[in-house]
Amino acid sequence: MRKEFVKIAIWGFGAMGSGMARLILSKQGFEITGVCDRNPAYVGKSMYTILGIDRGTHPDVVVKADIAEVVPPRSCDLALLCTDSFTAKAFPKIKWLLERGVDVISTAEEMAYPIAREPELSREMDRIAKENGVTVLGTGINPGVMMDLLVVMLTGVMADVASIRVSRINSLSPFGETVMEEQGVGLTVASFEEKHRNGTIAGHVGFRESSRMMADALGWKLERFEQQMAPIVTKTDRKSSYGFAAAGDVAGVDMTAQGYVDGRCAIDMRHPQQIEPKLGNVETGDYIDIHGHPNVAMAITPEIDGGIGTIAICVNMIPHVINARPGLKTMLDLPVPRAIMGDVRVRIEAGE
Amino acid sequence: MRKEFVKIAIWGFGAMGSGMARLILSKQGFEITGVCDRNPAYVGKSMYTILGIDRGTHPDVVVKADIAEVVPPRSCDLALLCTDSFTAKAFPKIKWLLERGVDVISTAEEMAYPIAREPELSREMDRIAKENGVTVLGTGINPGVMMDLLVVMLTGVMADVASIRVSRINSLSPFGETVMEEQGVGLTVASFEEKHRNGTIAGHVGFRESSRMMADALGWKLERFEQQMAPIVTKTDRKSSYGFAAAGDVAGVDMTAQGYVDGRCAIDMRHPQQIEPKLGNVETGDYIDIHGHPNVAMAITPEIDGGIGTIAICVNMIPHVINARPGLKTMLDLPVPRAIMGDVRVRIEAGE
Repeated sequence: MRKEFVKIAIWGFGAMGSGMARLILSKQGFEITGVCDRNPAYVGKSMYTILGIDRGTHPDVVVKADIAEVVPPRSCDLALLCTDSFTAKAFPKIKWLLERGVDVISTAEEMAYPIAREPELSREMDRIAKENGVTVLGTGINPGVMMDLLVVMLTGVMADVASIRVSRINSLSPFGETVMEEQGVGLTVASFEEKHRNGTIAGHVGFRESSRMMADALGWKLERFEQQMAPIVTKTDRKSSYGFAAAGDVAGVDMTAQGYVDGRCAIDMRHPQQIEPKLGNVETGDYIDIHGHPNVAMAITPEIDGGIGTIAICVNMIPHVINARPGLKTMLDLPVPRAIMGDVRVRIEAGE
Repeated sequence: MRKEFVKIAIWGFGAMGSGMARLILSKQGFEITGVCDRNPAYVGKSMYTILGIDRGTHPDVVVKADIAEVVPPRSCDLALLCTDSFTAKAFPKIKWLLERGVDVISTAEEMAYPIAREPELSREMDRIAKENGVTVLGTGINPGVMMDLLVVMLTGVMADVASIRVSRINSLSPFGETVMEEQGVGLTVASFEEKHRNGTIAGHVGFRESSRMMADALGWKLERFEQQMAPIVTKTDRKSSYGFAAAGDVAGVDMTAQGYVDGRCAIDMRHPQQIEPKLGNVETGDYIDIHGHPNVAMAITPEIDGGIGTIAICVNMIPHVINARPGLKTMLDLPVPRAIMGDVRVRIEAGE
């Protein structure tokens, strides 16, 4: 087993970044070497104070706004980058880290399969990573696992795949104000439609990435991709910790997408997100139905929580990324994900 | 894309080997270069005649009993070995193939995680494979995927895993006489118990392999392993194509196993197999319940068919094995399985 700790820097200390810090601190064999965040409430404070966790024998980690101070040369093995949704926005940060010889895991949704929307930046990241002998991976619960990688894995026991239907029906109730705003919770239908036209409702980012990942994995050529967004209108008042939707108003967003192969819809995706789904008689869950030989019908109920799921998959992929050959990798390239229960250093291959 | 066909030899032309041949012939970019089987009804006959498939432009493949005639030097990339259940019995055949520079996929149940029962033979296979620059993998539907790899994958979205319960409840109705006999279908309870004592009822081979695979993946130390076998006694007459169990007699085998970690049962496995389960009010399915953070409850209903599932996973893993670094690999080491829908040669990495 490797003697040195697996050294991790975290860039972006919001819900995801700070959640990953907590999880890493609960595991054996890791050391967090730095945290970068611009939030004035955090800068200059100890990460342990912010998390409310006893530092124990760990060296202190003071949050800094300047990444150059957070990641001095040879200070860490891997950086968890939890700052963006889009590849183009994450790219300069990824480039900076790769050029300093640091492996990167990005939570940016588009980075889950960046070639889908940014083929040139993808080639550039692959080149930079290889030149510097390091690896970059994008992942998350969705895109990343529930609506793509898990589907791919289930096709592994199939002789023939005709079409894929995948649904992720989840509750927005655990989420905070930002998510309520991004998903239009509480808006009137008219206001939702206006914001939808203006492009100020985010909805889910990742359908294009998920469908391209699945198509590439199977060897399908994705000819056409479409997606739709519609308000989920509630019939009764619904209230969650941070959201409220009056009867007749918007409780969430129903997003759908279709991927076409050989002129037919081979990939059918549905991802309705709303507060208090039970009040709309909606059962939450992750559902995969693959038509082929044999048919596969899978249900995970309730759905895997998006917050803890993303935190877990990013941390759990750390050893796989450290062990990988250099370059831009996707979840299709690396071994099957798995939870880290023992000392993480057991998983690091010699010579890394 | 590689121009040359991916060349496959098949050793053992029973239900699995011949099913793999059929599947390979339905895909693009493969060529079957030889078939080895001792069955006098097959030897000397064309594989295409046996399968009842038009040969088209493929060169003929005549079944031979001598592997040296089936796999002359440099005649194929990979051999599908479909002959045994136990590593010790498959070992001389695997060794022979590896020493001729051929990658191997074995269906032997114990080969799904051979270190569980044969650590010395595992080290020996790893050494021989590396010396010859080739790869050997054991896989199948179970052990191999449904009661182990899929569990591992689902833990990838978990921050913490406390315990695993996995059940595979399947029907034996599609299977033939051999399986009826191996699983004791139709026996009286007294006769079943006697055969159980004599060790002449096979039941499921693979619990030990599956539990060790899961434990190793998570970083758990498996301290103790136990398994049990009990008859499934039917209350009404049950009849399948090849099996019959009168009321009060044995309709199948209920197998259970437990893996202990830190003094408690952390892995709880159940695999009841019977003919016409609906007559016993049993719903078939693959069920995974993982206790931890978050809990994960997965159901695949009905269960993935064991025959087509094994055929598919073995064929679908061919590109992964060809691309792998040399040595003995398990499903934990390789990228996520996936169905092969396009030309298989697209998947073969350059330099292989």
